[in-house]
Amino acid sequence: MDLLKEKILREGRIEEGNILKVDSFLNHKLDIDLLNEIGKEFRRRFDNSNITKILTIETSGIAIAAITAQYFDVPVVFARKIESKNLDKETYQSEVYSYTKGKKYKIKISKRYITNEDNILIIDDFLARGKAVLGLIDIIEQARANIVGAGIVIEKGFQEGGKILRKRGINVNSLAIIESMGNNKIIFK
Amino acid sequence: MDLLKEKILREGRIEEGNILKVDSFLNHKLDIDLLNEIGKEFRRRFDNSNITKILTIETSGIAIAAITAQYFDVPVVFARKIESKNLDKETYQSEVYSYTKGKKYKIKISKRYITNEDNILIIDDFLARGKAVLGLIDIIEQARANIVGAGIVIEKGFQEGGKILRKRGINVNSLAIIESMGNNKIIFK
Repeated sequence: MDLLKEKILREGRIEEGNILKVDSFLNHKLDIDLLNEIGKEFRRRFDNSNITKILTIETSGIAIAAITAQYFDVPVVFARKIESKNLDKETYQSEVYSYTKGKKYKIKISKRYITNEDNILIIDDFLARGKAVLGLIDIIEQARANIVGAGIVIEKGFQEGGKILRKRGINVNSLAIIESMGNNKIIFK
Repeated sequence: MDLLKEKILREGRIEEGNILKVDSFLNHKLDIDLLNEIGKEFRRRFDNSNITKILTIETSGIAIAAITAQYFDVPVVFARKIESKNLDKETYQSEVYSYTKGKKYKIKISKRYITNEDNILIIDDFLARGKAVLGLIDIIEQARANIVGAGIVIEKGFQEGGKILRKRGINVNSLAIIESMGNNKIIFK
Protein backbone atom coordinates (compact mmCIF):
# COMPACT_ATOMS: atom_id res chain seq x y z
CA MET A 1 0.00 0.00 0.00
CA ASP A 2 2.01 2.91 -1.35
CA LEU A 3 0.23 5.71 0.48
CA LEU A 4 1.04 4.03 3.79
CA LYS A 5 4.66 3.32 2.85
CA GLU A 6 5.19 6.94 1.82
CA LYS A 7 3.71 8.09 5.12
CA ILE A 8 6.02 5.76 7.05
CA LEU A 9 9.06 7.02 5.15
CA ARG A 10 8.02 10.65 5.63
CA GLU A 11 6.93 10.59 9.27
CA GLY A 12 8.21 7.39 10.86
CA ARG A 13 11.12 7.69 13.26
CA ILE A 14 13.39 4.85 14.30
CA GLU A 15 14.31 4.70 17.95
CA GLU A 16 16.49 2.54 20.14
CA GLY A 17 15.64 -1.14 20.15
CA ASN A 18 14.30 -1.25 16.61
CA ILE A 19 11.20 0.68 17.62
CA LEU A 20 9.47 2.41 14.73
CA LYS A 21 7.51 5.38 15.96
CA VAL A 22 4.50 6.23 13.85
CA ASP A 23 2.66 8.20 16.48
CA SER A 24 2.09 11.15 14.17
CA PHE A 25 -0.55 9.19 12.25
CA LEU A 26 -1.20 5.71 13.61
CA ASN A 27 -1.11 5.40 17.36
CA HIS A 28 -1.15 8.69 19.21
CA LYS A 29 -2.30 11.27 16.72
CA LEU A 30 -4.62 9.53 14.25
CA ASP A 31 -4.80 10.44 10.56
CA ILE A 32 -8.44 9.52 9.97
CA ASP A 33 -8.23 9.83 6.17
CA LEU A 34 -5.33 7.40 6.11
CA LEU A 35 -7.20 5.04 8.44
CA ASN A 36 -10.07 5.06 5.95
CA GLU A 37 -7.71 4.15 3.11
CA ILE A 38 -6.32 1.38 5.32
CA GLY A 39 -9.85 0.13 6.00
CA LYS A 40 -10.70 0.07 2.30
CA GLU A 41 -7.48 -1.80 1.54
CA PHE A 42 -8.23 -4.45 4.18
CA ARG A 43 -11.66 -4.83 2.61
CA ARG A 44 -10.08 -5.41 -0.79
CA ARG A 45 -7.64 -7.94 0.61
CA PHE A 46 -10.22 -9.92 2.60
CA ASP A 47 -13.03 -9.37 0.15
CA ASN A 48 -14.38 -12.87 -0.35
CA SER A 49 -14.38 -13.81 3.29
CA ASN A 50 -17.63 -13.98 5.19
CA ILE A 51 -16.36 -11.97 8.12
CA THR A 52 -18.76 -11.50 11.04
CA LYS A 53 -16.54 -9.70 13.51
CA ILE A 54 -13.29 -7.79 13.75
CA LEU A 55 -11.13 -8.53 16.74
CA THR A 56 -8.33 -6.31 18.00
CA ILE A 57 -6.47 -5.43 21.16
CA GLU A 58 -6.24 -2.22 23.09
CA THR A 59 -4.91 0.41 22.61
CA SER A 60 -3.46 1.03 19.19
CA GLY A 61 -5.62 -1.45 17.31
CA ILE A 62 -8.93 0.12 18.27
CA ALA A 63 -9.16 3.11 15.94
CA ILE A 64 -7.88 1.09 12.96
CA ALA A 65 -10.37 -1.69 13.68
CA ALA A 66 -13.31 0.71 14.18
CA ILE A 67 -12.70 2.57 10.91
CA THR A 68 -12.02 -0.69 9.04
CA ALA A 69 -15.22 -2.28 10.38
CA GLN A 70 -17.24 0.28 8.42
CA TYR A 71 -16.12 -1.39 5.20
CA PHE A 72 -17.15 -4.86 6.40
CA ASP A 73 -20.33 -3.74 8.14
CA VAL A 74 -19.53 -5.79 11.24
CA PRO A 75 -18.96 -4.98 14.91
CA VAL A 76 -15.55 -4.75 16.55
CA VAL A 77 -14.55 -6.49 19.76
CA PHE A 78 -11.38 -5.36 21.43
CA ALA A 79 -9.46 -7.38 23.99
CA ARG A 80 -8.67 -5.57 27.19
CA LYS A 81 -5.20 -5.79 28.59
CA ILE A 82 -5.62 -5.54 32.32
CA GLU A 83 -7.84 -6.53 35.16
CA SER A 84 -10.73 -4.12 34.90
CA LYS A 85 -13.64 -3.98 37.31
CA ASN A 86 -15.94 -3.06 34.47
CA LEU A 87 -15.32 -6.10 32.34
CA ASP A 88 -17.53 -9.14 32.55
CA LYS A 89 -16.27 -11.93 34.78
CA GLU A 90 -17.16 -14.51 32.15
CA THR A 91 -14.16 -14.01 29.94
CA TYR A 92 -11.79 -15.83 27.65
CA GLN A 93 -8.24 -15.03 28.69
CA SER A 94 -4.77 -15.35 27.33
CA GLU A 95 -1.34 -14.09 28.24
CA VAL A 96 0.88 -11.93 26.06
CA TYR A 97 4.50 -10.94 26.44
CA SER A 98 5.24 -7.42 25.27
CA TYR A 99 8.84 -6.87 24.17
CA THR A 100 8.16 -3.16 23.89
CA LYS A 101 7.07 -2.91 27.49
CA GLY A 102 9.27 -5.71 28.78
CA LYS A 103 6.48 -7.47 30.63
CA LYS A 104 3.71 -10.01 30.47
CA TYR A 105 0.10 -9.00 30.55
CA LYS A 106 -3.24 -10.71 30.40
CA ILE A 107 -5.80 -10.10 27.71
CA LYS A 108 -9.50 -10.76 28.13
CA ILE A 109 -12.62 -10.86 26.03
CA SER A 110 -16.10 -11.39 27.38
CA LYS A 111 -17.58 -14.74 26.33
CA ARG A 112 -20.75 -12.95 25.30
CA TYR A 113 -19.09 -11.34 22.32
CA ILE A 114 -17.52 -14.25 20.42
CA THR A 115 -19.43 -17.36 19.45
CA ASN A 116 -18.50 -20.52 17.59
CA GLU A 117 -20.38 -19.16 14.58
CA ASP A 118 -18.10 -16.16 14.17
CA ASN A 119 -15.68 -15.70 11.28
CA ILE A 120 -13.11 -13.39 12.74
CA LEU A 121 -10.67 -10.99 11.17
CA ILE A 122 -7.89 -9.89 13.49
CA ILE A 123 -6.70 -6.30 12.96
CA ASP A 124 -3.63 -4.77 14.58
CA ASP A 125 -1.22 -1.91 14.01
CA PHE A 126 2.07 -3.83 14.27
CA LEU A 127 3.25 -7.39 13.83
CA ALA A 128 6.73 -7.99 15.22
CA ARG A 129 7.21 -11.15 17.24
CA GLY A 130 3.54 -11.99 16.98
CA LYS A 131 2.73 -12.29 20.66
CA ALA A 132 -0.39 -10.11 20.63
CA VAL A 133 -1.90 -11.86 17.60
CA LEU A 134 -1.06 -15.26 19.10
CA GLY A 135 -2.92 -14.20 22.24
CA LEU A 136 -5.97 -13.26 20.17
CA ILE A 137 -5.78 -16.55 18.25
CA ASP A 138 -5.67 -18.42 21.55
CA ILE A 139 -8.89 -16.67 22.59
CA ILE A 140 -10.59 -17.30 19.23
CA GLU A 141 -9.73 -20.98 19.53
CA GLN A 142 -11.12 -21.12 23.06
CA ALA A 143 -14.36 -19.75 21.66
CA ARG A 144 -14.25 -22.30 18.79
CA ALA A 145 -14.73 -19.46 16.35
CA ASN A 146 -13.16 -19.40 12.90
CA ILE A 147 -10.10 -17.25 12.13
CA VAL A 148 -10.35 -15.71 8.68
CA GLY A 149 -6.99 -14.02 8.90
CA ALA A 150 -4.95 -11.19 10.35
CA GLY A 151 -4.82 -7.75 8.74
CA ILE A 152 -1.72 -5.92 9.90
CA VAL A 153 -0.82 -2.33 9.12
CA ILE A 154 2.95 -2.62 9.58
CA GLU A 155 4.81 -5.92 9.75
CA LYS A 156 8.43 -6.01 10.85
CA GLY A 157 9.48 -8.61 8.31
CA PHE A 158 12.85 -9.05 10.00
CA GLN A 159 11.22 -10.38 13.15
CA GLU A 160 9.68 -13.82 13.46
CA GLY A 161 5.97 -13.05 14.05
CA GLY A 162 4.89 -13.24 10.41
CA LYS A 163 6.72 -16.51 9.85
CA ILE A 164 5.28 -18.12 12.99
CA LEU A 165 1.73 -17.13 12.09
CA ARG A 166 1.96 -18.14 8.42
CA LYS A 167 3.46 -21.50 9.45
CA ARG A 168 0.35 -22.03 11.56
CA GLY A 169 -1.73 -21.50 8.47
CA ILE A 170 -2.97 -18.03 9.42
CA ASN A 171 -3.75 -15.81 6.43
CA VAL A 172 -1.58 -12.82 7.40
CA ASN A 173 -1.96 -9.81 5.15
CA SER A 174 0.24 -6.83 5.96
CA LEU A 175 -0.12 -3.47 4.24
CA ALA A 176 3.55 -2.60 4.67
CA ILE A 177 6.29 -5.11 5.39
CA ILE A 178 9.58 -3.68 6.56
CA GLU A 179 12.57 -5.72 5.49
CA SER A 180 15.12 -3.72 7.43
CA MET A 181 15.42 -0.45 9.28
CA GLY A 182 19.10 -0.15 10.13
CA ASN A 183 21.08 3.11 9.95
CA ASN A 184 17.90 5.12 10.18
CA LYS A 185 16.81 3.84 6.77
CA ILE A 186 13.60 1.94 6.26
CA ILE A 187 13.53 -0.61 3.45
CA PHE A 188 10.26 -2.30 2.48
CA LYS A 189 9.97 -5.81 1.17
CA MET B 1 -30.46 11.18 21.29
CA ASP B 2 -33.28 8.64 21.32
CA LEU B 3 -31.47 5.83 19.49
CA LEU B 4 -28.74 5.87 22.11
CA LYS B 5 -31.16 6.05 25.04
CA GLU B 6 -33.12 3.08 23.69
CA LYS B 7 -29.91 1.14 23.32
CA ILE B 8 -28.89 1.95 26.90
CA LEU B 9 -32.30 0.84 28.21
CA ARG B 10 -32.22 -2.35 26.15
CA GLU B 11 -28.63 -3.42 26.70
CA GLY B 12 -27.18 -1.48 29.62
CA ARG B 13 -26.69 -3.33 32.87
CA ILE B 14 -26.33 -1.72 36.26
CA GLU B 15 -23.69 -3.19 38.52
CA GLU B 16 -22.47 -2.61 42.04
CA GLY B 17 -21.18 0.87 42.75
CA ASN B 18 -23.44 2.65 40.25
CA ILE B 19 -21.51 1.23 37.36
CA LEU B 20 -23.44 1.21 34.10
CA LYS B 21 -22.11 -1.48 31.80
CA VAL B 22 -22.56 -0.74 28.14
CA ASP B 23 -19.90 -3.08 26.88
CA SER B 24 -22.22 -4.71 24.35
CA PHE B 25 -22.05 -1.62 22.15
CA LEU B 26 -19.78 1.14 23.47
CA ASN B 27 -16.63 -0.05 25.15
CA HIS B 28 -15.81 -3.70 24.58
CA LYS B 29 -17.92 -4.79 21.65
CA LEU B 30 -18.43 -1.75 19.41
CA ASP B 31 -21.61 -1.12 17.46
CA ILE B 32 -20.09 0.77 14.54
CA ASP B 33 -23.44 1.91 13.09
CA LEU B 34 -24.37 3.43 16.43
CA LEU B 35 -20.95 5.08 16.68
CA ASN B 36 -21.60 6.68 13.30
CA GLU B 37 -24.94 8.04 14.50
CA ILE B 38 -23.15 9.35 17.59
CA GLY B 39 -20.55 11.01 15.38
CA LYS B 40 -23.20 12.69 13.25
CA GLU B 41 -25.00 13.91 16.34
CA PHE B 42 -21.81 15.44 17.78
CA ARG B 43 -21.33 17.16 14.44
CA ARG B 44 -24.83 18.63 14.63
CA ARG B 45 -24.29 19.79 18.19
CA PHE B 46 -20.89 21.40 17.59
CA ASP B 47 -21.66 22.48 14.06
CA ASN B 48 -20.59 26.11 14.08
CA SER B 49 -17.34 25.56 15.87
CA ASN B 50 -14.10 25.74 13.98
CA ILE B 51 -12.74 22.52 15.42
CA THR B 52 -9.20 21.54 14.39
CA LYS B 53 -8.66 18.47 16.54
CA ILE B 54 -10.54 15.93 18.61
CA LEU B 55 -8.95 14.93 21.89
CA THR B 56 -9.80 11.82 23.87
CA ILE B 57 -8.28 9.40 26.33
CA GLU B 58 -7.53 5.74 26.04
CA THR B 59 -9.19 3.26 25.98
CA SER B 60 -12.92 3.68 25.59
CA GLY B 61 -12.85 7.11 24.00
CA ILE B 62 -10.75 6.11 21.01
CA ALA B 63 -13.28 4.38 18.75
CA ILE B 64 -15.92 7.04 19.41
CA ALA B 65 -13.45 9.82 18.69
CA ALA B 66 -12.12 8.15 15.52
CA ILE B 67 -15.57 7.60 14.03
CA THR B 68 -16.73 11.08 15.09
CA ALA B 69 -13.65 12.73 13.56
CA GLN B 70 -14.85 11.65 10.11
CA TYR B 71 -17.72 14.12 10.41
CA PHE B 72 -15.41 16.98 11.35
CA ASP B 73 -12.62 16.05 8.96
CA VAL B 74 -9.97 16.52 11.65
CA PRO B 75 -7.37 14.26 13.26
CA VAL B 76 -7.75 12.65 16.67
CA VAL B 77 -5.18 12.75 19.43
CA PHE B 78 -5.62 10.37 22.33
CA ALA B 79 -3.99 10.76 25.70
CA ARG B 80 -2.12 7.73 26.93
CA LYS B 81 -2.63 6.62 30.48
CA ILE B 82 0.65 5.08 31.51
CA GLU B 83 4.36 5.36 31.13
CA SER B 84 5.02 3.93 27.69
CA LYS B 85 8.44 3.57 26.13
CA ASN B 86 6.99 4.38 22.74
CA LEU B 87 5.61 7.78 23.62
CA ASP B 88 7.58 10.90 23.01
CA LYS B 89 9.46 12.27 26.01
CA GLU B 90 8.32 15.78 25.22
CA THR B 91 4.86 15.49 26.68
CA TYR B 92 2.18 17.44 28.45
CA GLN B 93 1.07 15.53 31.50
CA SER B 94 -1.73 15.55 33.99
CA GLU B 95 -2.97 13.28 36.73
CA VAL B 96 -6.40 11.67 36.90
CA TYR B 97 -8.13 9.80 39.69
CA SER B 98 -10.28 6.93 38.50
CA TYR B 99 -13.11 6.06 40.86
CA THR B 100 -13.86 2.97 38.76
CA LYS B 101 -10.37 1.62 39.20
CA GLY B 102 -9.76 3.13 42.62
CA LYS B 103 -6.42 4.65 41.68
CA LYS B 104 -4.59 7.62 40.27
CA TYR B 105 -2.95 7.50 36.89
CA LYS B 106 -0.98 9.86 34.70
CA ILE B 107 -2.08 10.93 31.27
CA LYS B 108 0.28 12.21 28.62
CA ILE B 109 0.10 13.83 25.22
CA SER B 110 3.08 14.57 23.03
CA LYS B 111 3.72 18.30 22.66
CA ARG B 112 4.04 17.82 18.92
CA TYR B 113 0.36 17.15 18.53
CA ILE B 114 -1.35 20.11 20.19
CA THR B 115 -0.51 23.71 19.38
CA ASN B 116 -1.78 27.03 20.65
CA GLU B 117 -3.68 27.41 17.37
CA ASP B 118 -5.85 24.35 17.96
CA ASN B 119 -9.58 24.49 18.67
CA ILE B 120 -10.18 21.28 20.50
CA LEU B 121 -13.27 19.18 21.00
CA ILE B 122 -12.97 16.66 23.82
CA ILE B 123 -14.84 13.39 23.22
CA ASP B 124 -15.37 10.69 25.84
CA ASP B 125 -17.69 7.80 26.54
CA PHE B 126 -18.69 8.66 30.11
CA LEU B 127 -18.84 11.74 32.30
CA ALA B 128 -19.28 10.95 35.99
CA ARG B 129 -17.09 12.91 38.40
CA GLY B 130 -15.28 14.59 35.55
CA LYS B 131 -11.74 13.65 36.45
CA ALA B 132 -10.71 12.40 33.00
CA VAL B 133 -12.09 15.48 31.21
CA LEU B 134 -10.47 17.77 33.79
CA GLY B 135 -7.15 16.04 33.08
CA LEU B 136 -7.57 16.68 29.36
CA ILE B 137 -8.52 20.32 30.02
CA ASP B 138 -5.39 20.70 32.14
CA ILE B 139 -3.31 19.48 29.18
CA ILE B 140 -5.12 21.71 26.67
CA GLU B 141 -4.46 24.71 28.93
CA GLN B 142 -0.78 23.79 29.22
CA ALA B 143 -0.66 23.84 25.42
CA ARG B 144 -2.52 27.20 25.36
CA ALA B 145 -4.98 25.71 22.91
CA ASN B 146 -8.66 26.61 22.83
CA ILE B 147 -11.32 24.28 24.26
CA VAL B 148 -14.43 24.29 22.10
CA GLY B 149 -16.30 21.91 24.34
CA ALA B 150 -16.77 18.36 25.53
CA GLY B 151 -18.96 15.87 23.69
CA ILE B 152 -19.96 13.07 26.03
CA VAL B 153 -21.89 9.96 25.10
CA ILE B 154 -23.33 9.17 28.54
CA GLU B 155 -23.37 11.63 31.43
CA LYS B 156 -24.21 10.46 34.91
CA GLY B 157 -26.27 13.51 35.81
CA PHE B 158 -26.45 12.50 39.46
CA GLN B 159 -22.69 12.86 39.84
CA GLU B 160 -20.87 16.16 39.98
CA GLY B 161 -18.71 16.10 36.82
CA GLY B 162 -21.16 17.92 34.55
CA LYS B 163 -21.79 20.63 37.12
CA ILE B 164 -18.08 21.20 37.76
CA LEU B 165 -17.29 21.48 34.05
CA ARG B 166 -20.25 23.74 33.19
CA LYS B 167 -19.36 26.00 36.14
CA ARG B 168 -15.91 26.38 34.59
CA GLY B 169 -17.59 27.56 31.40
CA ILE B 170 -16.96 24.38 29.42
CA ASN B 171 -19.58 23.70 26.74
CA VAL B 172 -20.54 20.18 27.80
CA ASN B 173 -22.93 18.43 25.44
CA SER B 174 -24.02 14.94 26.46
CA LEU B 175 -26.05 12.68 24.19
CA ALA B 176 -27.73 10.89 27.10
CA ILE B 177 -27.93 12.24 30.63
CA ILE B 178 -28.91 9.75 33.30
CA GLU B 179 -30.84 11.32 36.15
CA SER B 180 -30.95 8.20 38.28
CA MET B 181 -30.31 4.50 38.02
CA GLY B 182 -31.52 3.07 41.31
CA ASN B 183 -33.40 -0.25 41.64
CA ASN B 184 -32.09 -1.41 38.31
CA LYS B 185 -34.09 1.27 36.55
CA ILE B 186 -32.46 3.92 34.38
CA ILE B 187 -34.20 7.30 34.19
CA PHE B 188 -32.99 9.92 31.72
CA LYS B 189 -33.13 13.63 32.29
